[in-house]
Amino acid sequence: MPGNSFGELFRITTAGVSHGPGYLVIIDGCPPGLPLSAEDLLPDLRRRRPGQSKLVTQRQEEDVPEIWSGVFDGRTDGTSIGILFRNTDPRSQDYSDIKDKYRPGHADFTFDAKYGFRDYRGGGRSSARETVCRVAAGAIAKKLLGQQGVRVLGYVKQVGDVIAAMADPSAVTLEQVEATPVRCPEPEAAQRMINLIEEVRKEQDSIGGVCELVAVGMPPGWGEPVFDKLKADLAKALLSLPAVMAFEYGAGFGVATARGSANNDPFVARGGRIGTETNRHGGMLGGISSGEPIVLRVAIKPTSSLPRPQRTVTRTGEPTEIVTRGRHDPCLLPRFVPMGEAMVALVLADHWLRWRAQCGTHG
Amino acid sequence: MPGNSFGELFRITTAGVSHGPGYLVIIDGCPPGLPLSAEDLLPDLRRRRPGQSKLVTQRQEEDVPEIWSGVFDGRTDGTSIGILFRNTDPRSQDYSDIKDKYRPGHADFTFDAKYGFRDYRGGGRSSARETVCRVAAGAIAKKLLGQQGVRVLGYVKQVGDVIAAMADPSAVTLEQVEATPVRCPEPEAAQRMINLIEEVRKEQDSIGGVCELVAVGMPPGWGEPVFDKLKADLAKALLSLPAVMAFEYGAGFGVATARGSANNDPFVARGGRIGTETNRHGGMLGGISSGEPIVLRVAIKPTSSLPRPQRTVTRTGEPTEIVTRGRHDPCLLPRFVPMGEAMVALVLADHWLRWRAQCGTHG
Amino acid sequence: MPGNSFGELFRITTAGVSHGPGYLVIIDGCPPGLPLSAEDLLPDLRRRRPGQSKLVTQRQEEDVPEIWSGVFDGRTDGTSIGILFRNTDPRSQDYSDIKDKYRPGHADFTFDAKYGFRDYRGGGRSSARETVCRVAAGAIAKKLLGQQGVRVLGYVKQVGDVIAAMADPSAVTLEQVEATPVRCPEPEAAQRMINLIEEVRKEQDSIGGVCELVAVGMPPGWGEPVFDKLKADLAKALLSLPAVMAFEYGAGFGVATARGSANNDPFVARGGRIGTETNRHGGMLGGISSGEPIVLRVAIKPTSSLPRPQRTVTRTGEPTEIVTRGRHDPCLLPRFVPMGEAMVALVLADHWLRWRAQCGTHG
Amino acid sequence: MPGNSFGELFRITTAGVSHGPGYLVIIDGCPPGLPLSAEDLLPDLRRRRPGQSKLVTQRQEEDVPEIWSGVFDGRTDGTSIGILFRNTDPRSQDYSDIKDKYRPGHADFTFDAKYGFRDYRGGGRSSARETVCRVAAGAIAKKLLGQQGVRVLGYVKQVGDVIAAMADPSAVTLEQVEATPVRCPEPEAAQRMINLIEEVRKEQDSIGGVCELVAVGMPPGWGEPVFDKLKADLAKALLSLPAVMAFEYGAGFGVATARGSANNDPFVARGGRIGTETNRHGGMLGGISSGEPIVLRVAIKPTSSLPRPQRTVTRTGEPTEIVTRGRHDPCLLPRFVPMGEAMVALVLADHWLRWRAQCGTHG
Repeated sequence: MPGNSFGELFRITTAGVSHGPGYLVIIDGCPPGLPLSAEDLLPDLRRRRPGQSKLVTQRQEEDVPEIWSGVFDGRTDGTSIGILFRNTDPRSQDYSDIKDKYRPGHADFTFDAKYGFRDYRGGGRSSARETVCRVAAGAIAKKLLGQQGVRVLGYVKQVGDVIAAMADPSAVTLEQVEATPVRCPEPEAAQRMINLIEEVRKEQDSIGGVCELVAVGMPPGWGEPVFDKLKADLAKALLSLPAVMAFEYGAGFGVATARGSANNDPFVARGGRIGTETNRHGGMLGGISSGEPIVLRVAIKPTSSLPRPQRTVTRTGEPTEIVTRGRHDPCLLPRFVPMGEAMVALVLADHWLRWRAQCGTHG
Repeated sequence: MPGNSFGELFRITTAGVSHGPGYLVIIDGCPPGLPLSAEDLLPDLRRRRPGQSKLVTQRQEEDVPEIWSGVFDGRTDGTSIGILFRNTDPRSQDYSDIKDKYRPGHADFTFDAKYGFRDYRGGGRSSARETVCRVAAGAIAKKLLGQQGVRVLGYVKQVGDVIAAMADPSAVTLEQVEATPVRCPEPEAAQRMINLIEEVRKEQDSIGGVCELVAVGMPPGWGEPVFDKLKADLAKALLSLPAVMAFEYGAGFGVATARGSANNDPFVARGGRIGTETNRHGGMLGGISSGEPIVLRVAIKPTSSLPRPQRTVTRTGEPTEIVTRGRHDPCLLPRFVPMGEAMVALVLADHWLRWRAQCGTHG
Repeated sequence: MPGNSFGELFRITTAGVSHGPGYLVIIDGCPPGLPLSAEDLLPDLRRRRPGQSKLVTQRQEEDVPEIWSGVFDGRTDGTSIGILFRNTDPRSQDYSDIKDKYRPGHADFTFDAKYGFRDYRGGGRSSARETVCRVAAGAIAKKLLGQQGVRVLGYVKQVGDVIAAMADPSAVTLEQVEATPVRCPEPEAAQRMINLIEEVRKEQDSIGGVCELVAVGMPPGWGEPVFDKLKADLAKALLSLPAVMAFEYGAGFGVATARGSANNDPFVARGGRIGTETNRHGGMLGGISSGEPIVLRVAIKPTSSLPRPQRTVTRTGEPTEIVTRGRHDPCLLPRFVPMGEAMVALVLADHWLRWRAQCGTHG
Repeated sequence: MPGNSFGELFRITTAGVSHGPGYLVIIDGCPPGLPLSAEDLLPDLRRRRPGQSKLVTQRQEEDVPEIWSGVFDGRTDGTSIGILFRNTDPRSQDYSDIKDKYRPGHADFTFDAKYGFRDYRGGGRSSARETVCRVAAGAIAKKLLGQQGVRVLGYVKQVGDVIAAMADPSAVTLEQVEATPVRCPEPEAAQRMINLIEEVRKEQDSIGGVCELVAVGMPPGWGEPVFDKLKADLAKALLSLPAVMAFEYGAGFGVATARGSANNDPFVARGGRIGTETNRHGGMLGGISSGEPIVLRVAIKPTSSLPRPQRTVTRTGEPTEIVTRGRHDPCLLPRFVPMGEAMVALVLADHWLRWRAQCGTHG
C-alpha cells in the first residue's frame, strides 16, 4: 500500500501539510469501549507543541484535536476514529525563499526527484508537523496499553557530548522527564544540555542527540518471529520519524565488541515467573517480547534548518546560498520525546492486537 | 497480515523449520521477463551456507534451490515464484537437550510465551536457517536492480574491536569482499578479524561485529515520504534478521554530537545532475533516495549458542545449566553479509516497483 | 488491516458518521501531476446527493468537499489527498426512536453484537452517507482513468419488474443517463420506473432494482490471475456498498443454463488488435481485462427504512413496532449509480497502478 | 500486495503451475494448538480431485499434501504452515496445440496481454489445479471454525435448467451432498443433473450451473461495517475462483422486484437470543453476521475447454480453429463444491480472527 499508513491492526493514516488548512488522521482498528475524549490527547500534544519553552521553536500552534468520529458517549465505538487539526499560524511568507533552492538536509530535492515538483511551503508533506497526527494516535495507543499494564516513556539521553547516565531506564518517571524543558530526567545532565542548546542557538547552529525509550509492564509473547519481529517494527516506526539516523535496543552497537559469554542474559525464575538476570536483550528475544522492559535508543540529527547561510544549488543546479528563516528548534530532542513514545505505543498496540488475534483466548 | 511475509509489491513469504523437511519461499510481484535460473541463486546461497570455511559452522547444508514455478523458458513469467530447499543434514539428536531448557539469547522462552509450546528442534521456526529463503529471493531482487543499474554490496566492517577503515564504502568490490573468508575488504583488518575469531572459538566463546551495506547506482526519488521512508523500511528489513541489535545509516549515531552546520551535506551540481558534496545523509533525505550511495551499518550480537555451560532455567523455572551442542559460528558476521545484502535488495526492489506504480512513466 | 480502507495502490480510507461533524477521506497513492480541484468532484457528488429530485430523499446535504492536502498549484502532488465533508442538516431528533429498537434490514443489531453498543444516530457508521467519501475519491479515479482512455458509466437497468433493454451497454452516454431523474437511459423504461417509484412511495413502501455498470476503453492486461482477479475485486467493491445483494458480470447467472459451445466468445482480429466477437465474458478472462468493455450488474434491495410500522424487537428482545421516520429514498437506484461508478473506478485505477508496477515499461 | 495471497489474518499464499513440479501453499496466521495432520486435508482434497467419478475429468492426480512446517507434535504451532503438492500426471503432450492459439473462454490471451508471454502448458498459472492449495487451506479453516461451532457446506443447486428446490439450505447434510457424484442433496434433481451432464458430454459440449453455500452456527458480530463487509469478502473469495460469473446472497437478484415491506426480515426473540423470522438477508446485515445461516449462491460457467472445434485466432491474429484436447469436466459444478466451501471457510476464519483482534475478550 502507499506510504501514508502505519500499522497492521491498529492502523493510522494521515494527510495534511504544514501550510495548508490542517491535518487529518484516521485511526482504524481501535477496540470498542475505551474511554476517550479530546482532552486525553492534549498532554502529549502539548509536549510535542512548538513554543512550549525557550528551547524550542517559537512557532505557535494550538494543536487542538477535533474528534469527528469513532467516539460515542465518551467511548471508542469500534469504528474509525477521525481527528482533525487546523493550522493556525502558518506565516507562509517565511518560506518564499525555498521555492527554488534546495535546503541542505531537507527533502526538497528528493521530493522534486520523486514527484517532479513539490509543495514548497514550509516543507509541505515532509514537514515534521505531520507528527501531530502520530502523537494524537499514540496517545490513544497509550491508553489502550495502559489498560494492559504497559507504560511507554521516553527521555533525552544525550545532547551533543552531554550524556545522562541512567542507572535503570525502567525506573524513570514522567515527572522526572517533565521536570526540565529538555526532558532529561537526570537534573545535572539536564542543565548542561540546556546550557549547550542555548550556546548552540546563539551560534546560529543546531545540535543532535539521543532519545531513550522504554516500555515497562510488557507481557512476554508479543511480537512475530520472522519478518515482523517486534524489534523490526520498532526500528521502522522510529526511523519513520524525521531526523532519526540510528536505532539500537538493549546492548545495541555495544554487542559488536561483546563476547557471547558476557552478552547472553541468563534466565532466572523471579516472583513466580521466568525472566532474565540482566537485560542486554532490551526486552526482546527472537523478535518477541520477553517480559523484561523494552529499552531502545535513537539518534536524532541536528536540525537541518539553520539561520546562517548554507551552500546549496537551485532547482536548475546553480550554486547559491540559503538562509532558512522561520522558527526552528536548535535541538530537536525535547520535542522528539513524545513523538518517539507515540511510535513505540503504536507498535505495541498493534502487536497486542495481533497477539490477541492469533493467540488470545477465545471469546 | 501475519508475520511471514515481507514487502509490499515485491513480496516474499516463507515457511519451514530447521529440522523439518525443508523450506519454502514464494516470491510475488516480480516483473515478467527477467532471465532466471536456479544457477543465479547459487552464488549468494553459497556465501550464506554453513561449512564454507573454518570460520563458520561446519553444519553441511547443500542449499540447492528448486524453482517450482514463476519461471518459464528461462525467464520470470510474472506469476508467483515458488522455491524449495530440502533439509539434508539435520542431526536432530544434537538438540534433544533444549526441549526443556531455555537457551540464553534464543527465542525458546518467548516462543513458549507466545504460542504455549514450540518446535524445539534446532530452534524450529526461529532458526537462522530461514534466511536461506531470504537470500534466494534477494538474489532475484539483485538481478532486477542490476537491470536498473543498482548494485548492493555488504562487507564486514568490524569484529570485536577490530575495525576496518574504509575510505569509500561505495568503491568496495565483490572481489575484495570475497578475498577473505571473513568478508572484510581491507586485508590487514581481515587478518586480524580472522585471528580474533579463531581465538574466540578456542575459548568456546563467540564475538559480535558490524556489517556495512552499500547500494550504488541509486536513482534519486525512490522511497516514500512519511511512514514507509526508505530508511525505515531498510531498518525494519535489517532488524528482521536474527541477531541484529542496531541500525544506522550515513553519519548514524555520530549525529548525536554533531552540529547542523557541520552535518548538513551541501548540494552541488555534478556532471549534469544534482548531488551532495558529502554523504553524511547516507543517500536518503526525507525518506527518499538522493542518488548518493546508500550506506548503512548494523550491529550483530555474538552467537548466543555456546559450547560452554551457561546458566538458565527449565520450562518450569528450575535453575539449571545448558551447553548448546551442535555446530555454531563463533562469529555470525561472515555469513551475515549475504543476508544483509538480500534484505537491502528486497527493500530497494520493492520501492522501485512502488516508484514505478505511482511515479513511473506510462506504458 | 481493519476495514475502513479500500484498494492496494490507489487506496482510500474513510471516517465519519451521519450525525457527527462530518466525514474524512484520505486518498493515498494517486500519481502526481493530475489536474484537480474541488470543482472536479462536484458533478458526481451532486448525482449522489439527497434532495436532487422528487424521486429521492429530501434530506438536504450540501456535500461541499474541502481538499486539505495532496493538491498543489492545481495538480495532485503525489502526497495523500485529504478531503472533508461537513454534515449540515442532521435533524437528529428524527432518529431518537431507534436507540432501543432494531430496525429491520439495518445494521443496528449486528453493530451491537459486534461492538457491544453503537452510535444509533441515523445509522452512525453504517449510514450510506459514508459513500460521499467514495464518490469523491471515485471522481479522482475517473479523472486518472480518463487520461488512460478509460470511461466508467452506470445506469439503472431495472426497477421492480421494469427492465430497460439496452442493445449495447457500451454505447450508453452520460447525457442519456442524466436525462431522467431515475438514471435509466432508455426513455420509455425510465418513465415506467418513475411511475413505479411514485406508486411505491405513495404506498409507504420501497422497491429494489438493478444497476448496470460499464467500463469502456479498457486496455487488455489489467488484473491479477489468482486471488485478486479483476472480477473478484469488482465484486468486493460493489458488495461493499450498502444494500447490494448480488453481482454478476457478462452473461452472469445466465451461464447456469448455457452450454460451452454457445457461451464461449470466439477470438477475432479486429482493427489490428485481437478481441472477441461477442462479450459474454464481460471484458474479463482469467481475472484479467480482455480489452472488451467491462459489463457488470448489481442488485440493490428495496430501502429498509419504511414510513410504515414494521415488527421488530428492542435491545432486550421485547417485541415491538418501529416506524422509521426521517427522509428516505423509496428506491435507492438513482442515487446508487454514482456510487457504483465510483467503486468500479477505484478498482480500475488500483489495477492500473498494479499493472504499472509489475508490467509497466521502465522509467 | 501482489495477487497470490488471500486473507488478512488467516492468510494463504500460493505458487505453482499445472505442468511444473507441483504446487506450494503457505498458510499464515493459524492459531496454535489446532490438531492437524495431512489426513485432515484428504477428504476435501478427494472431493476436489479429478477422476473421482465418471462425471468429471479423468485426469488422475493423487493430490497428496506434504506438510513441511507449522505443525509440531500433531498440532499447529503458530508458525507458517507450508504444504506441497507434487504434480504426478501431467501428460504435457496434450497441450502442445495451445502454444500459439488462444483458447476461447481461457486466460491465454489476457496473460499474453499482461505479461508479454505465458506458460502455455495446461493453462500454466491460470489452471484451476491451483485450487488444490485453496482446498487444503480451506480444510484447516474448517477445522478452526468447527471449534467455534461453525460448519460450512456447499452443494449443487442447479445444472442447466435442472434446479434443486431446497426447503431449508441450513438443514442439508454432508451425507446428502456426497450421496451422488453430482453433489446435489435432492436425489431426484441429482439424477436429472447426472443425466443432463452425460448428455452434454456425449455432445462434446459442457454445461453451467449454480452452487449454493451455507454456513451454520455463525455467531452474530463477525464482519466489518464498511469496505470489508462480510458479504464483500465472500463475494471476492468466490469470484476469485475460476469460472465463477455471479454471486448473490440471501434473496440475491430477487430483491430487484421486491418491496421493502416484504423483503425486510422482522427481528424476533428466539430461545434467549435475537434473530430474524426469515432469512432473506442471508445471514448478514450491514456487512456483519446476524447469527442466521449465511446462504449464498454462485453461478459457474460451462467448461470453456471443449473437445469440439472452436473458432479463434493465433497469437498474431490469424483466424484458426482449436480443439482443446485433454481431459476436461463437462460440468464444473461437482468439483466446485469443495472449492467454494474452502473459500467461504477462509473468509470466515479470517473474520473470526479479525473479530478476536478488535472485539475479543482480553487474554
